[in-house]
Amino acid sequence: MLQSGDFVGYSFWLISMALAASTIFFLMESLRIGGKWATSLTVSALVTFIAAFHYFYMREVWVATGDTPTDFRYIDWLLTVPLLMIEFYLILAAITKVSGGIFWRLLIGTLVMLIPGYMGEAGYLNVTVGFAIGMLGWAYILYEIFFGEASKVAATEAPPAVQKAYTLMKWTVTVGWAIYPIGYFLGYLAGGTDVGTLNIVYNLADVLNKIAFGLFIWYAANEATAAKE
Amino acid sequence: MLQSGDFVGYSFWLISMALAASTIFFLMESLRIGGKWATSLTVSALVTFIAAFHYFYMREVWVATGDTPTDFRYIDWLLTVPLLMIEFYLILAAITKVSGGIFWRLLIGTLVMLIPGYMGEAGYLNVTVGFAIGMLGWAYILYEIFFGEASKVAATEAPPAVQKAYTLMKWTVTVGWAIYPIGYFLGYLAGGTDVGTLNIVYNLADVLNKIAFGLFIWYAANEATAAKE
Amino acid sequence: MLQSGDFVGYSFWLISMALAASTIFFLMESLRIGGKWATSLTVSALVTFIAAFHYFYMREVWVATGDTPTDFRYIDWLLTVPLLMIEFYLILAAITKVSGGIFWRLLIGTLVMLIPGYMGEAGYLNVTVGFAIGMLGWAYILYEIFFGEASKVAATEAPPAVQKAYTLMKWTVTVGWAIYPIGYFLGYLAGGTDVGTLNIVYNLADVLNKIAFGLFIWYAANEATAAKE
Amino acid sequence: MLQSGDFVGYSFWLISMALAASTIFFLMESLRIGGKWATSLTVSALVTFIAAFHYFYMREVWVATGDTPTDFRYIDWLLTVPLLMIEFYLILAAITKVSGGIFWRLLIGTLVMLIPGYMGEAGYLNVTVGFAIGMLGWAYILYEIFFGEASKVAATEAPPAVQKAYTLMKWTVTVGWAIYPIGYFLGYLAGGTDVGTLNIVYNLADVLNKIAFGLFIWYAANEATAAKE
Amino acid sequence: MLQSGDFVGYSFWLISMALAASTIFFLMESLRIGGKWATSLTVSALVTFIAAFHYFYMREVWVATGDTPTDFRYIDWLLTVPLLMIEFYLILAAITKVSGGIFWRLLIGTLVMLIPGYMGEAGYLNVTVGFAIGMLGWAYILYEIFFGEASKVAATEAPPAVQKAYTLMKWTVTVGWAIYPIGYFLGYLAGGTDVGTLNIVYNLADVLNKIAFGLFIWYAANEATAAKE
Amino acid sequence: MLQSGDFVGYSFWLISMALAASTIFFLMESLRIGGKWATSLTVSALVTFIAAFHYFYMREVWVATGDTPTDFRYIDWLLTVPLLMIEFYLILAAITKVSGGIFWRLLIGTLVMLIPGYMGEAGYLNVTVGFAIGMLGWAYILYEIFFGEASKVAATEAPPAVQKAYTLMKWTVTVGWAIYPIGYFLGYLAGGTDVGTLNIVYNLADVLNKIAFGLFIWYAANEATAAKE
Ligand SMILES: CC1=C(/C=C/C(C)=C/C=C/C(C)=C/C=O)C(C)(C)CCC1
Ligand SMILES: CC1=C(/C=C/C(C)=C/C=C/C(C)=C/C=O)C(C)(C)CCC1
Ligand SMILES: CC1=C(/C=C/C(C)=C/C=C/C(C)=C/C=O)C(C)(C)CCC1
Ligand SMILES: CC1=C(/C=C/C(C)=C/C=C/C(C)=C/C=O)C(C)(C)CCC1
Ligand SMILES: CC1=C(/C=C/C(C)=C/C=C/C(C)=C/C=O)C(C)(C)CCC1
Ligand SMILES: CC1=C(/C=C/C(C)=C/C=C/C(C)=C/C=O)C(C)(C)CCC1
Repeated sequence: MLQSGDFVGYSFWLISMALAASTIFFLMESLRIGGKWATSLTVSALVTFIAAFHYFYMREVWVATGDTPTDFRYIDWLLTVPLLMIEFYLILAAITKVSGGIFWRLLIGTLVMLIPGYMGEAGYLNVTVGFAIGMLGWAYILYEIFFGEASKVAATEAPPAVQKAYTLMKWTVTVGWAIYPIGYFLGYLAGGTDVGTLNIVYNLADVLNKIAFGLFIWYAANEATAAKE
Repeated sequence: MLQSGDFVGYSFWLISMALAASTIFFLMESLRIGGKWATSLTVSALVTFIAAFHYFYMREVWVATGDTPTDFRYIDWLLTVPLLMIEFYLILAAITKVSGGIFWRLLIGTLVMLIPGYMGEAGYLNVTVGFAIGMLGWAYILYEIFFGEASKVAATEAPPAVQKAYTLMKWTVTVGWAIYPIGYFLGYLAGGTDVGTLNIVYNLADVLNKIAFGLFIWYAANEATAAKE
Repeated sequence: MLQSGDFVGYSFWLISMALAASTIFFLMESLRIGGKWATSLTVSALVTFIAAFHYFYMREVWVATGDTPTDFRYIDWLLTVPLLMIEFYLILAAITKVSGGIFWRLLIGTLVMLIPGYMGEAGYLNVTVGFAIGMLGWAYILYEIFFGEASKVAATEAPPAVQKAYTLMKWTVTVGWAIYPIGYFLGYLAGGTDVGTLNIVYNLADVLNKIAFGLFIWYAANEATAAKE
Repeated sequence: MLQSGDFVGYSFWLISMALAASTIFFLMESLRIGGKWATSLTVSALVTFIAAFHYFYMREVWVATGDTPTDFRYIDWLLTVPLLMIEFYLILAAITKVSGGIFWRLLIGTLVMLIPGYMGEAGYLNVTVGFAIGMLGWAYILYEIFFGEASKVAATEAPPAVQKAYTLMKWTVTVGWAIYPIGYFLGYLAGGTDVGTLNIVYNLADVLNKIAFGLFIWYAANEATAAKE
Repeated sequence: MLQSGDFVGYSFWLISMALAASTIFFLMESLRIGGKWATSLTVSALVTFIAAFHYFYMREVWVATGDTPTDFRYIDWLLTVPLLMIEFYLILAAITKVSGGIFWRLLIGTLVMLIPGYMGEAGYLNVTVGFAIGMLGWAYILYEIFFGEASKVAATEAPPAVQKAYTLMKWTVTVGWAIYPIGYFLGYLAGGTDVGTLNIVYNLADVLNKIAFGLFIWYAANEATAAKE
Repeated sequence: MLQSGDFVGYSFWLISMALAASTIFFLMESLRIGGKWATSLTVSALVTFIAAFHYFYMREVWVATGDTPTDFRYIDWLLTVPLLMIEFYLILAAITKVSGGIFWRLLIGTLVMLIPGYMGEAGYLNVTVGFAIGMLGWAYILYEIFFGEASKVAATEAPPAVQKAYTLMKWTVTVGWAIYPIGYFLGYLAGGTDVGTLNIVYNLADVLNKIAFGLFIWYAANEATAAKE
């Protein structure tokens, strides 16, 4: 049972409930809104579903052992980050014809970001090198969504609501995601941090990076559908 | 097993059943009513779903240990209060175009109310200071919904049924929510209260603050939909 | 396992199965009939759902301990009686515009009936006084549905099928409910009764008070919908 | 685990699987066919659902104790026989206006048949007397459906498919049901029978009395719907 | 846990997964295709559902005891073979008016085939006699579907796709079913066979006799629906 | 519980979550897109459902015993490979009339590929012979989809999106599938490999061979449906 004062445990509880509720929300809204936007909302639901599953598991590991191997987070990221990337493609595909290249480039960026990052953390690569390559992957993702093809499609062909969602998603990738390399840096390069604190920060960051991200899409879906009616 | 005469246990049982039934109700009605109002009703269902989940857990903790850490309530509040706040935005958005600022300001009020409040209760902040800041957060929420942008939109653009719902929701936030700072005050500033009694009062208050609140929205959804037909 | 010849156990089994089947029935019919009547049928389903949940629990308590604390019945009543009261409002609201006052007055009657009743049974109030006040609450409910606003709306604006349902519901509240004060009277004021017998009578009474009550509404819903087509 | 050669166990397994599959079938077809007939099919599903639940339980009791108290059958009958009776009303109500008296008279017949029957078996009444009264109840049911109001409505207003279903249902009540009083007679009045054999015969009889009965209705629903198209 | 190299166990695993997946498939397609064909597909789903349930149970019995009483297969057959027979009726009924006699004659054939067969295997009848009578039952079924009423309706009134399905089903009953009497013959009349091998052959035969059989119907449903559009 | 650093375990976790999420996705999209394409998407869901079920089981076997018998993979392949083959038929059947021979030839190829392959691995056949025959089966599949009837239909009658999907599926069968014979070769013919590594490679290959394969079809379904509107 959760101990009183176990803040890490609380944050696990909080985020897992929030993700479970979000999954219900996105599925209900996907069924309601229908059409092309339904796919984007279903994908949002998959992100929160996968994450909720991992978090319930991590919460139990935490309560039982006082430990939450970073490894689980990377497993989760390997599944959810590509799904988030595909959303950039899907919200544009819902309004106009776009090339699949948008998604593929983002996927490559994701892998370059996550795999060396993990190798650094897990000791299969020099921590600094792993970090550096990971940063490049992230930088490439940011380049793509700020100046690449997707950004151009969004700027020229998207209706205002979709543009707004695109901008919010873009900045989430910039600001919200920053928490992870910062955590990495503090933990491995700057003398170490408190594992508990880091877990809490990561857990709360997912409210933005997974739930709010999905809500931006939901916002666009809603406005774009209303506009068409 | 629940002991005869265990009123706290009874109140946990009562509210968890009521919340479970409400969740079914709101989901069924969300599917039935459809359109923009469906979102508001789905959110009402999320509130009762999250709370039911917490209450079933708290009931078990209570039966097993005779204790219900305040901490669980705060976890629940951190999730459900923002969802309640978003309802003010959603019921107006269902009838006219409104700015998202309405929700953001209410969210900030919520955090200012809950976080220092918790810190005070848990001993991370002086109890009086925690209470005072929390009161300011609440006051700000009340200001917003009584005199802020939302109140103006409601007054000028909402059809009668939505206005009535808005008024009921507004007063719930005023009167129904008052129970929590009063409990805090009695427990920490005025010499302590009986934990059992407090739990019962909190549990019953949620009939108003979570279920009735959702029903006000359901009422508006119903009338507004009927009017359009 | 249920013992052969344990009639109380049998009656618990019977009513819990009947309530579970009724819940399926009301939900299926709510989805089929749709429109405003769907809400009434969903509420009927909530009544039987809540009661089924309580009865399955009470059956287990009975089999394990040979005891079924009255307390559970009151918890159930506190949830289901108001839902039954709201049905008087809903079936009229499905056909015409009615004031919510109808429901509020009935709710007050309910609380005046149940709370002192419980306090009397549980020893927090003199048994006779508890009984007397509870009787007043019930009397008030009967007054309302026989001569109050609802009765007038039913008499003047309701189509025949709804009138018939209203009449049946009215008499259920009179005759079907009488079993509970009679049980109270016999148990506490007239020298005590056999707990087993009382349980059986209460269980069977719920076939009328919860299931048949819901079926009266279903009847009205069916006829009114057919008439409109 | 079921023992090889345990025929009673086999017949329990057979009938419980058959009832579970029938429940799925009737619910799927109720959703597909829709309209007034959907109600009849939902009721057929309730019959098989309640019976499946009882049979799964009885199978376990049988495997664990080699015993299946007659009591469970009576609990089942008290729920399912009235539901079967209501079908006579519902299939006529799906095609024309009929008086509810049809159902009430059949319900009374059911109670007169089952309650004294049980009292006789359980020793609360002389076995012969219980049997005799029960037979009268059954006779009354047969009278009603062969010569009473329902039979007249069926003969004059029902389309051919409904008439055929009515006839099949009528004869099921005559021939299929006969197994139960025969079992009673053999067991209590004619020197006793083998409990195992009786259980097998009862279990197989329910294929006709519960599943086939529902299929007759499904047949009528199908034909009547096709005819209207 | 399944042992490596336990081929009988593998074949149980294989067929139970295949049946579970088929059940999902037939239900999804039944909902999608709708109309009269939906019933045939629902019945296909019932066949695979019942069989999956039995196979999961038999797999566990096998892993736990290294034994799978033939009895379970007969229970399964008693339920699924009549359902397969009814499909001959249903696919013709979906396109034209056909007499129910088709189904009844096939049902009688089924019982004549299965019951003496079982009695022979279980030692309640001379094995050769049981076999011989069973063969007559099967022969009668084959006669019916090759030269009886159904075959004539199929030949004269069915559109090409239904005719093709009918032919495939007919030959499945001839060739696919032959495995069972052959197994019987080898096991009881020709000196015995290896129980393991027999189980594997039976399990694999069900891919044809239960799943493929359902797919033939699905094929007809698809073509006939497409043709109408 | 999964051990930190257990990469094989991680890859099992990853692929099982991915398959579970894919199943939800394909079912939701099958319901949304409807029509003939729905069948293809349902089949994609069956592939990922069956595989998820096997992987969850294999993960547990791995965590408990550090072993994952190749046998489970073959059971999975025997079910999922034919389902993948049928997709070649279904996507063409969704746009034009095609002969079922396409599927049958691919099914034969599948069996020739898998059964001798398994016999080689399990020691029922010389490893080299098993491998060689299996390779012929695969070669035949490749011949069919590159130069056979399906390839011609795709080239001449399919709209661009379906052609693109066909090409991607074709190359998946070529490149993605190659991993399995390579693993076989390394393990049995070239001196053995590390079981752990092989498992990881196989698990990751299924992201392409099962999930991406399904997504190619989803892509075609989406485009073809949009084009028709
Ligand atoms: C740049 C960088 C990293 C970034 C990780 C990120 C950005 C993870 C994002 C996860 C999300 C958004 C999950 C939500 O579903 C690492 C690998 C920590 C270390 C190497 C440098
Ligand atoms: C003002 C104030 C408080 C208010 C808490 C409130 C108002 C909680 C409301 C919870 C609700 C409405 C939950 C329903 O879902 C605290 C934090 C106790 C203490 C500090 C001062
Ligand atoms: C008048 C009276 C009583 C009435 C109770 C009633 C009328 C309960 C009804 C319950 C129902 C209808 C439940 C169905 O869901 C008490 C409290 C026993 C005692 C005090 C006097
Ligand atoms: C006449 C008679 C009896 C009849 C029982 C019957 C007819 C039961 C039918 C049950 C059914 C049809 C269940 C299906 O759901 C008794 C009580 C054995 C004994 C007294 C005489
Ligand atoms: C002829 C014959 C037999 C045939 C059995 C058959 C044909 C069973 C078919 C089962 C199926 C098709 C199940 C699929 O759901 C027996 C009883 C073995 C022995 C007696 C002779
Ligand atoms: C050629 C060959 C093989 C190929 C196996 C393949 C190609 C399996 C594909 C499995 C898939 C695609 C599963 C996805 O659901 C064996 C049997 C290893 C060995 C013999 C030679």
